[in-house]
This record gives sequence, C-alpha cells and structure tokens, in this order.
Amino acid sequence: MALKFEIVAQRGKARAGLLHTAHGAIETPVFMPVGTLGTVKGMTKDELCAPPIDAKIILGNTYHLFLRPGLEVIDSHGGLHEFANWKRPMLTDSGGFQVFSLAGLNNIDEDGVTFRNHLSGDKIRLTPKISMEIQRSLGADIAMAFDQCPAADGDRDSHLLAMEKTTRWAKICRDVKMRDYQSIFGIFQGGIDVDLRLRHLAEITDLDFPGYAIGGLSVGESTEDMYRILDAVAHRMPEDKPRYLMGVGTPDNLRHGVEAGVDMFDCVMPTRNARNGNLFTSRGVVRIKQAQYKTDKSALDPECPCSTCTDYTKAYLAHLYRCREILFSRLATMHNLTYYAQHMKRLRKKIIDG
Amino acid sequence: MALKFEIVAQRGKARAGLLHTAHGAIETPVFMPVGTLGTVKGMTKDELCAPPIDAKIILGNTYHLFLRPGLEVIDSHGGLHEFANWKRPMLTDSGGFQVFSLAGLNNIDEDGVTFRNHLSGDKIRLTPKISMEIQRSLGADIAMAFDQCPAADGDRDSHLLAMEKTTRWAKICRDVKMRDYQSIFGIFQGGIDVDLRLRHLAEITDLDFPGYAIGGLSVGESTEDMYRILDAVAHRMPEDKPRYLMGVGTPDNLRHGVEAGVDMFDCVMPTRNARNGNLFTSRGVVRIKQAQYKTDKSALDPECPCSTCTDYTKAYLAHLYRCREILFSRLATMHNLTYYAQHMKRLRKKIIDG
Repeated sequence: MALKFEIVAQRGKARAGLLHTAHGAIETPVFMPVGTLGTVKGMTKDELCAPPIDAKIILGNTYHLFLRPGLEVIDSHGGLHEFANWKRPMLTDSGGFQVFSLAGLNNIDEDGVTFRNHLSGDKIRLTPKISMEIQRSLGADIAMAFDQCPAADGDRDSHLLAMEKTTRWAKICRDVKMRDYQSIFGIFQGGIDVDLRLRHLAEITDLDFPGYAIGGLSVGESTEDMYRILDAVAHRMPEDKPRYLMGVGTPDNLRHGVEAGVDMFDCVMPTRNARNGNLFTSRGVVRIKQAQYKTDKSALDPECPCSTCTDYTKAYLAHLYRCREILFSRLATMHNLTYYAQHMKRLRKKIIDG
Repeated sequence: MALKFEIVAQRGKARAGLLHTAHGAIETPVFMPVGTLGTVKGMTKDELCAPPIDAKIILGNTYHLFLRPGLEVIDSHGGLHEFANWKRPMLTDSGGFQVFSLAGLNNIDEDGVTFRNHLSGDKIRLTPKISMEIQRSLGADIAMAFDQCPAADGDRDSHLLAMEKTTRWAKICRDVKMRDYQSIFGIFQGGIDVDLRLRHLAEITDLDFPGYAIGGLSVGESTEDMYRILDAVAHRMPEDKPRYLMGVGTPDNLRHGVEAGVDMFDCVMPTRNARNGNLFTSRGVVRIKQAQYKTDKSALDPECPCSTCTDYTKAYLAHLYRCREILFSRLATMHNLTYYAQHMKRLRKKIIDG
C-alpha cells in the first residue's frame, strides 16, 4: 500500500498520528493549506515549507486545475508536484464539490455530471472514472473519490439518492488504476442525520479504502449540527485509517474535530480571510480595516513567531491593506497559516502529552 | 556631512563608487527599486536584502506616503525606516514629479503648488519648505529638493521659467534643517537643450548640495535626445558628488547613463513591467502572456540565479499570470529586480576591471 498510517498517541477520541507517503511523513492532526490553482495564494513553496508554517501537505483543486492550466500542461511536467515544484505530500479533491458549487447548469445523471466551465462556458463532462484519471495525471499522494455532495437543505430523499450514487461511484473510483504511490480516500455523506451518516459510513467502509473522509459538512448547516454529527460519527470511522474532515474550518471547528477523532482538515478560511483582512490571533480575530489599527504600533499577535508579527506593526499592515498592496496578502497569509499551524501543533502536543 | 562619496574606479566617464550613509554603504552605479507606498510591491524586505537582489537602497515616494498613511502614522513610528522596517539606506523624492503628473487641477504659483489629492479630491498645498518637512518626517538618508519638472513638449520659455523657479526653490530646500543624517540632493532641469541644461546645472551646483540629480528626462523625449543630453551634461556634474538620473529606465538606458558618468538610477520599470508580465532576460524580453509559453517547460532565464528561474518553468509562470495569481507578481518582481541588480553589478565590475 502506498500509504501507511500509525497512531502514536491517543487521548479520549483524539489521535496523534504519522501518515507516511511517498513524498514524506505528515504529523496528524494536520491542517492542509489549500493551493487551488497549484499555488497557495501569495506564498512560495519555500515559505510554506519553512518554519513556522512548515506545511507537510497541501491540497490542489482538481476542477480548477483541469480548467487551468489543463492536463496537457501538467502532464508535460509529469504531474502537479513537478509543475508547482512542490516536493512534499499533496492531496487533490475530486472536483465534485466545485462542480456542484461553482459550475453552472449542472446535469447530474446516473453516471456523472455535465456542466458548464465557469470560465469559458464550455460543456464539460465529469464522471468518477474521469475524475480519477485527472487525479492520476495530477499525481497527488492522496486522491479523493468522486462523490455527490447534496444541498445542505436537501430533504431525506435527496440525501438517500446522493448516498446511493456516491457509493456506486466510489466503487468505480476504487477500481481505477492510479500511480503506484497514490491512494484513494472514500467519502461518505448523509447530511446532518446520524442514522444516514452511519449507514453510509458502513457502505463506504465496506469498499476498503486506505482512508476516509467526511463530506457534506460545513455546507450551510449550524455549528451545533456539525458538532453533533462529528461527535456521533468521527470515532466510528475505521481506527487504523486516516480520517479527513473536508472543507472545515475555524480554529474552534478544528479543535472540535480533533477531539471527535479527526486527523486531517482543509479549508480556504486562513488564506481567504487573510486576503480579506481578517487575521486570527491569540487575542481573537483582528479585522485590520477597522480604524483603530491605523495608528496601532503594536505587533499583530505578540505571541506569534511569524515574520509578519515580529517585523511589522498593525499600522503598517493596515496601511498595506488600505492601499491594496500585494505585500498585505503575503504578510496576512503568512500569519494566518502560521496561526493554523501553531494551533494544530498545540492540539497534537496535548494529545501526546496526555 | 551626513553623506560620504568615494570613487573607487573610473573607466572613461564611467565611475564605480561607494556612497556611505548612516544606514550603510551603497556600491555605485546603483539601481534603486521603487517602494512607492513604503513597500516595493510584492516583496518583503528580507527578499530585497538577500542575494541575488541585495538592494542597498530603495526609494519612497513622498507624495504617495504623504497621502497614505500620512505623516501622523509615520511620525508615530519615528520615520519611514521604522514604519517599513527597512534598515538600509533610503531616498525620497520631493513629491514634485507626482504633483505634476498625477494630481489634478494644479495651480502652480511662485511659492509652490496647490493641487487635488488624486484619491480624495481634497485640496493640498505643497511648497519647497513643506516638501522638505515631509521628507524630514520620512527620514530617508537622501531627500530631494522640490523642483518643477516642465512638460516634455514645453517651449523654451516654459523651461526657463521652470529653471528659475527650481533654482529659487532649491535655495529654500537647502536651508531647511533636516535630520542630522539626512542629505539633500539638488535637481537641475533644462529639457533637451544642452545650453539650458548646462546653465541650470551651474546654477544648482552653485548652491552646493551633497549630490545632484538630472530631472526632467524620460518624460516623453526620444531616447536619442535623452542620450544626447546625458552625453553632454552627466560628466560635467561635480566629480566628487554622486550623480543621480531620476526615473530612468531600461537596462540599455542604465548602461548608457553609467557610461555617461551617472552613479544612481531609479525607475518603476522592473517592478511594474513584472506585474504586467514583461520579464527581462539575457535573451531579451519575455512577454509571458504569449501563447508559446503556455507549454514551455524551460526556465525563464537559464542564466539567472533568482528562485523564479531556478525553481519554476515558463509554463508555470504563464499559468500564474493567466490566473492572475498573486504569486505571479512576486516571482516576476523577484526576477526583474534580480535582472537589474545583476546588470548593475556587471556594469560596476566592468569599470573596476578596466
């Protein structure tokens, strides 16, 4: 098997692990920065790999990369690792979520989805097999099964239909021959209904993937509902396989997820919020556009080791933000990713220290 | 005197020198990256200070910084060095050029200029004394006298008037008490008329500044005219003082300027062109938006030591450019500033090697 997962410590339902891949080991619980288009926006690979961020794995978006630059360019480089010159582990999503959320005029049938490219308007077809083939070209260490994520406010029948389709598609995905070092994670759905969640988890688990993901959360449900589902299902996912909560979330969400037994997370929140001027700090979120920061000579977060906090004042950051300077996005992203990295490090340490 | 200039080698009219300032020594000839708003767009100070860019001095724009973040914020930090956490030498322009080129509804009188802030529309007054006071607040090692840069296509009378005013204003600037470590450079005008240039150079030289700048070039005249003026006047500027050619230019312009006897240059060209996808290389300018680069797996410039060229392919850069990714601006700026730095290094070496 391409992937090896070992649990090094447990505390309640929370686990600290090591996920070994062909591109290196990942300490879990881990937060994966999102590199939608082959770049974690504003950051170089060197910054991402150096402390204090020291990202062990990043995520690429299959849908976005399929549209731009397209497979011809990525294939010619040998894959996304080579194209982006990222030497550490990577994970790609299946494109399913973007198809349902971004692309227009979706036509979901039994075998896949036909949709319009959100850039050119061209018709594109995505099926479980095509998604896996694209992900094989991308060549990430972890590829995700192509699932159907139903609308958050869908009725029970829509969830049942999505589950049925997702299971059928998962089988197809599982049987696609990937690169030797690639592993496919299965995704289960079920909305915010614990029974449906457990039923679908059992179905997907039966297919025997090297890792499993909770899909369809953080899609509009309340935090209470999300936590209720996490508390009921995360620890029931296979113990010896990595557990991945997709698209989540705030630092509090991550803590709750870890406590419920989740090992892996991804979310655009730290990077997107950074660019929008919302900065996570040990004293709460700083909205740098607020007038009070215009003359604030203190560091953004005196407890943060990142260069944004050690080198600059809030007033300087506020100035860059107001002037829409590129450097703001860099410094803010550097800080928010550091905050998330430190947060995960602390959570892991707590599990190991017992 | 705050500034000390020594010439270490000469070859024809070209000089290699060392300009000593309170914030460190600058090897000349030197190109100064432009940091309009207290940031060289997209770059951190660490990147600018590390090889291969290793910028010994950067420029700040008085007009832009006066509007944003304004003097209250910069004063509270103690100056622009502290605000931007830039520990090496800095130079600020006088704001004059921006007032004439950017600000609307100018009203130039005998004592200064009244204009509308190009952001808010507010009326603002700038005089030689106010410009120097703002530059004192900014605290750059080198401040520039407040001059009047006449229109490129102005008639002889408009140049004579600008010269007369610039001389009168230069006296006022010279007598403003700056910080102990600050030096003021005088600027001479005269358009593309050699006689006017030499006449005004003599007037400004009489005022005894620690350095002199050629203003009013690269404002629309032909390259031929620019070179004709440089060839006629640069070597006639005081030998023992640094000679600064403002707002110039292309790599060829810099070479010609150095050969004519100029020591210092600044221009937005490498940084602005970078963001627009025009990249200087040893094999000519690469316009990264051209279709041919979409699948080009070669380095941008195989002879360039910057991380953009050692780490990425043209296809990756073309992809980032097409997706308007922030990382493109960073990588492109890193490269173009490296190209300029290497160019100046080579020119200096040629002078020293004889």
